[in-house]
Amino acid sequence: TISDVTSITEGIVLQRSKDFVGLRDYALYDSGALAIPAWTSATFKFRSMCASSIPLIPCIPNVSWKSNGPDEALRANTQVGHCWPTPGSTGRLGIALSHGVIISHLTIDHLPGELAPDISTAPRQFTLWGYHPIAPDDPEIEDGLVRLAQGEYDIGSGSHIQTFPIFEAAKDLNLSFVAVLLEVQSNWGSLDHTCIYRVRIHGTPI
Amino acid sequence: TISDVTSITEGIVLQRSKDFVGLRDYALYDSGALAIPAWTSATFKFRSMCASSIPLIPCIPNVSWKSNGPDEALRANTQVGHCWPTPGSTGRLGIALSHGVIISHLTIDHLPGELAPDISTAPRQFTLWGYHPIAPDDPEIEDGLVRLAQGEYDIGSGSHIQTFPIFEAAKDLNLSFVAVLLEVQSNWGSLDHTCIYRVRIHGTPI
Amino acid sequence: TISDVTSITEGIVLQRSKDFVGLRDYALYDSGALAIPAWTSATFKFRSMCASSIPLIPCIPNVSWKSNGPDEALRANTQVGHCWPTPGSTGRLGIALSHGVIISHLTIDHLPGELAPDISTAPRQFTLWGYHPIAPDDPEIEDGLVRLAQGEYDIGSGSHIQTFPIFEAAKDLNLSFVAVLLEVQSNWGSLDHTCIYRVRIHGTPI
Repeated sequence: TISDVTSITEGIVLQRSKDFVGLRDYALYDSGALAIPAWTSATFKFRSMCASSIPLIPCIPNVSWKSNGPDEALRANTQVGHCWPTPGSTGRLGIALSHGVIISHLTIDHLPGELAPDISTAPRQFTLWGYHPIAPDDPEIEDGLVRLAQGEYDIGSGSHIQTFPIFEAAKDLNLSFVAVLLEVQSNWGSLDHTCIYRVRIHGTPI
Repeated sequence: TISDVTSITEGIVLQRSKDFVGLRDYALYDSGALAIPAWTSATFKFRSMCASSIPLIPCIPNVSWKSNGPDEALRANTQVGHCWPTPGSTGRLGIALSHGVIISHLTIDHLPGELAPDISTAPRQFTLWGYHPIAPDDPEIEDGLVRLAQGEYDIGSGSHIQTFPIFEAAKDLNLSFVAVLLEVQSNWGSLDHTCIYRVRIHGTPI
Repeated sequence: TISDVTSITEGIVLQRSKDFVGLRDYALYDSGALAIPAWTSATFKFRSMCASSIPLIPCIPNVSWKSNGPDEALRANTQVGHCWPTPGSTGRLGIALSHGVIISHLTIDHLPGELAPDISTAPRQFTLWGYHPIAPDDPEIEDGLVRLAQGEYDIGSGSHIQTFPIFEAAKDLNLSFVAVLLEVQSNWGSLDHTCIYRVRIHGTPI
């Protein structure tokens, strides 16, 4: 009935209004997370451009094409231009989490393809590493880093907000992490730069 | 049919896109409302923290953990961290409204429980007072303040955006108010501080 | 069934989360578009006001009632107060687009009537002109400007986000444009000023 449809829809709209994914994000800058400069690749510098080549107006460099630093990838704003650009088709982003957390999932946001000026800068294959200061004796762990997840951000998927679970083997370690390293191993074709709009880390705080 | 469901859903999504509640907010900072310092409790000072205790990186004080002033509770942004924190489990917020208004409802926003780093800082019991310079001879009115509503913000409710009607007796006075005082009488358990994400005042302007 | 309704609704909510219209916006400031001062009317200056006439508090000029410049009409933020105000009931806004584009539609946003402090400042009748440096020999084209669309923003419509197609005749020219001029020929009654919340230009980049 109409009233059933209305109540189902109201529920979904409310749920989706909760930061869309509805999971607490331990990589959120506004909660206290930070990019770790020593673990993070360089920021791509956009050339200062004129807005366009219109004879009537002089060159006005568009200040909004500043290059955002890596903290931009930890902010909730994912509108056009609000990404962290890193040169080339790969990159690394170290994140000091807001809390020590037993990680269950990560979420990667990019622009919807319909809105993206250049979807080829979206990340593609990635690996997520967790950092734990005392590395247990496990072949999966090197230098305090545990491989937590591998996956592919899919620009052809219906949703531009994609959540990935971590490996069962990593879950079984039952370790909490204070930092993670996201390694982007490829993008969707741009040789120029790769743009990370948002990375979220979900799980249970300790 | 599918087309009925689609049109019902489109309507609800559009309606919910209108600031969710769909009622004009006379306590909105961007419309001209302001916190009244003389009526408002102190702002809680967060300790400057290091992002985390990772040996690889030095302490970087997280600038986003600045303490927002009371005007933050009058802004539309309710993402994590965008609250006004006041010390202890009670607090008072005076609001100079953007217009003189015959008040019908108020709305209190907090974070959804799923996203909140610490839901115990959410407000619980509250009273709303309206300020009218000429106090009529009525037992409900003292010092120009009329008790307009009392209620409880419920963290267990499905919705984190909660709207409350004012008392029938207060409605019957048919008074317009230029300012209100929100008294938070308890929170959900934090002894440290209480966080007000957003307060909205609805009604009819005069 | 419930699962059908859920999946239809999830799809619509996801689609609507894509900047609502789901079309790339070549007039977006954050993508590199800019207002062209030489083509644009003056910005209306709000009087500095006291928040209200409350005897208890002195006059605090509300800083949020600054007058935003014309770039505000190219930003995604359409919350109360985030418009570009221009004096009187008409106005002109020149926009240097982020890319050369074969234009198909424009979108005009205003506040929903339920939320607007003063809906009489909404734009009403408008004409959109495209600028092409080499004007072909066509009666529709003068001084490099092609009339692309004419229409009326309807404050009585269910939706406050309204998309308009360009003329078939303009489409047939198959011209790309680097700039447009939006001429607002009337508003919904305010003699004081007209407020443009957002203008978007859609089409195919060249």
